[in-house]
Amino acid sequence: MSIRIGIFGYGNLGRGVENAIRQNPDMTLRAVFTRRDPSTLRIQTPTAEVCHVDQAPAMTDEIDVMILCGGSATDLPMQTPAMASLFNVVDSFDTHAKIPQHFANVDAAAKAAGKIAMISVGWDPGMFSLNRMYAGAILPDGKDYTFWGRGVSQGHSDAIRRIDGVLDAKQYTVPVPEALEAVRNGENPTLTTREKHTRECYVVAKEGADLARIENEIKTMPNYFADYDTTVHFVTKEELDRDHAGIPHGGTVIRCGKTGVGLQNSHIVEYRLKLDSNPEFTSSVLVAYARAAYRMHTEGQSGCKTVLDVPPAFLSPKSGEELRKELL
Amino acid sequence: MSIRIGIFGYGNLGRGVENAIRQNPDMTLRAVFTRRDPSTLRIQTPTAEVCHVDQAPAMTDEIDVMILCGGSATDLPMQTPAMASLFNVVDSFDTHAKIPQHFANVDAAAKAAGKIAMISVGWDPGMFSLNRMYAGAILPDGKDYTFWGRGVSQGHSDAIRRIDGVLDAKQYTVPVPEALEAVRNGENPTLTTREKHTRECYVVAKEGADLARIENEIKTMPNYFADYDTTVHFVTKEELDRDHAGIPHGGTVIRCGKTGVGLQNSHIVEYRLKLDSNPEFTSSVLVAYARAAYRMHTEGQSGCKTVLDVPPAFLSPKSGEELRKELL
Repeated sequence: MSIRIGIFGYGNLGRGVENAIRQNPDMTLRAVFTRRDPSTLRIQTPTAEVCHVDQAPAMTDEIDVMILCGGSATDLPMQTPAMASLFNVVDSFDTHAKIPQHFANVDAAAKAAGKIAMISVGWDPGMFSLNRMYAGAILPDGKDYTFWGRGVSQGHSDAIRRIDGVLDAKQYTVPVPEALEAVRNGENPTLTTREKHTRECYVVAKEGADLARIENEIKTMPNYFADYDTTVHFVTKEELDRDHAGIPHGGTVIRCGKTGVGLQNSHIVEYRLKLDSNPEFTSSVLVAYARAAYRMHTEGQSGCKTVLDVPPAFLSPKSGEELRKELL
Repeated sequence: MSIRIGIFGYGNLGRGVENAIRQNPDMTLRAVFTRRDPSTLRIQTPTAEVCHVDQAPAMTDEIDVMILCGGSATDLPMQTPAMASLFNVVDSFDTHAKIPQHFANVDAAAKAAGKIAMISVGWDPGMFSLNRMYAGAILPDGKDYTFWGRGVSQGHSDAIRRIDGVLDAKQYTVPVPEALEAVRNGENPTLTTREKHTRECYVVAKEGADLARIENEIKTMPNYFADYDTTVHFVTKEELDRDHAGIPHGGTVIRCGKTGVGLQNSHIVEYRLKLDSNPEFTSSVLVAYARAAYRMHTEGQSGCKTVLDVPPAFLSPKSGEELRKELL
């Protein structure tokens, strides 16, 4: 029997989930839920319905797992607890500092409803968290490093777009190669913010705008750019659309740990992602964890879970026997 | 309360486990079990006993998890089922083709005794298996690659030592940089055995031995060397002991997978290990999974498990709350 999936919100992430479902034969897209007028939305899956979000509560018998594809700032803090009282859910809540509060809210709702709610699924939080956990548990005497990029930061691109005189912009976060190399060599360096990443900006300015002022406003912007070495390239709208249309991202989690009688032996554990499409990879992780949410619910579990709580085999459509034979 | 560990077998792996336990304050080494005369064994932990293996059955109340540190060829197939009927156990059984049979034997014994038996723990099988699983579940349309090295292969070193005229030898397995690069670039190459790894041999010959014959015997040895580009360096015993005393190893698991409407986007997931000491890293993994075995048993579970079955959080001494706050 196929696992029936609902997609709640149809932006980049929702479209990515729709694609990922087609790559997983044990799953079916049942419906996409939108806040817009459903008749205006065109989706890729002819067998799925487009519904208004208000129809969701009437469809609890038709959907096994609802994948929440809204944003972390305002959508998910409301939507995840609300939906977890109706469905098994998976979200990609990624405001690290607010995870404990989000967990508590969602846990209460999911437990009361006897549902599984899997939060903060994706790559950071998500796969990166898992790798920090595994490496830290194996090598307790050690140090963790996380580098992001080369990839597009939506938040930083938006910050540039808000500057007066800017038409459009794209910002890449780039790890400093020398810092990465020092960590990989086991040197355990202490790195400042500036030493870890640089920021590359591609900016389309309005005709006649003061480019020097824009560049200065970017480079001195607190929190976003002031603590980094930032490069600003002014490009035409055509160049931006041609050369910077994608949403690539990625990064690296590295732990260097010591073992032995005198802690004389070093071990480097590195997990690296190089992603052509940040939202499509995140969507693929969400879909794998939707399978796990379904299995955990079938086993009688309930409450809020994160990637740290899920037995890895639950992510795969293969049986334990197949997994042991083919890839252990 | 501290988790009380027994070490069964005191070779490189057993000594590594002893060191790793000292790095984990929630664990105590209770006893080391040996087939030798216990009075001849000196261990590092003054508070632990040295016992003969025959004493183990009388100590079921004093040991929470027995870590089995024997070899996969002859020790573990007998020892793991036998010990799993008395204790929670963890082993590093690494004969990939025989895992299903070993699992079945151990599962029967552990279930009958109500114990947890964690098999095939280490890095391959182990952490590499986990990474093949995660990446494969997230990116179903893709291809896996595993490269080993640069590192010492004990089996290949032993094979050289059996050649007439050889006093001692060390063999390094080395991934071919061009192959690794092609995989990292997402080229999805089809690679033969020869194209993936080369083999580097450091050989101490007996005085007057026919070096050309030894080199030829190595390079043409079926299974071990014939399918590889092999380099043979003759060195003195002093050089071997000075430059090749360590047991480093490592390797890389890479999956390249596609997503998107037309599968136009590529994603590279890479997990890499660079280990100064192969047995000490394996020991560190065994100890983390001993903690998980203890927790699963405390929860009332029993039977044979692998790394694929263990919720990651069970490996850490930290609470779910701490983990969510600090590293999710």
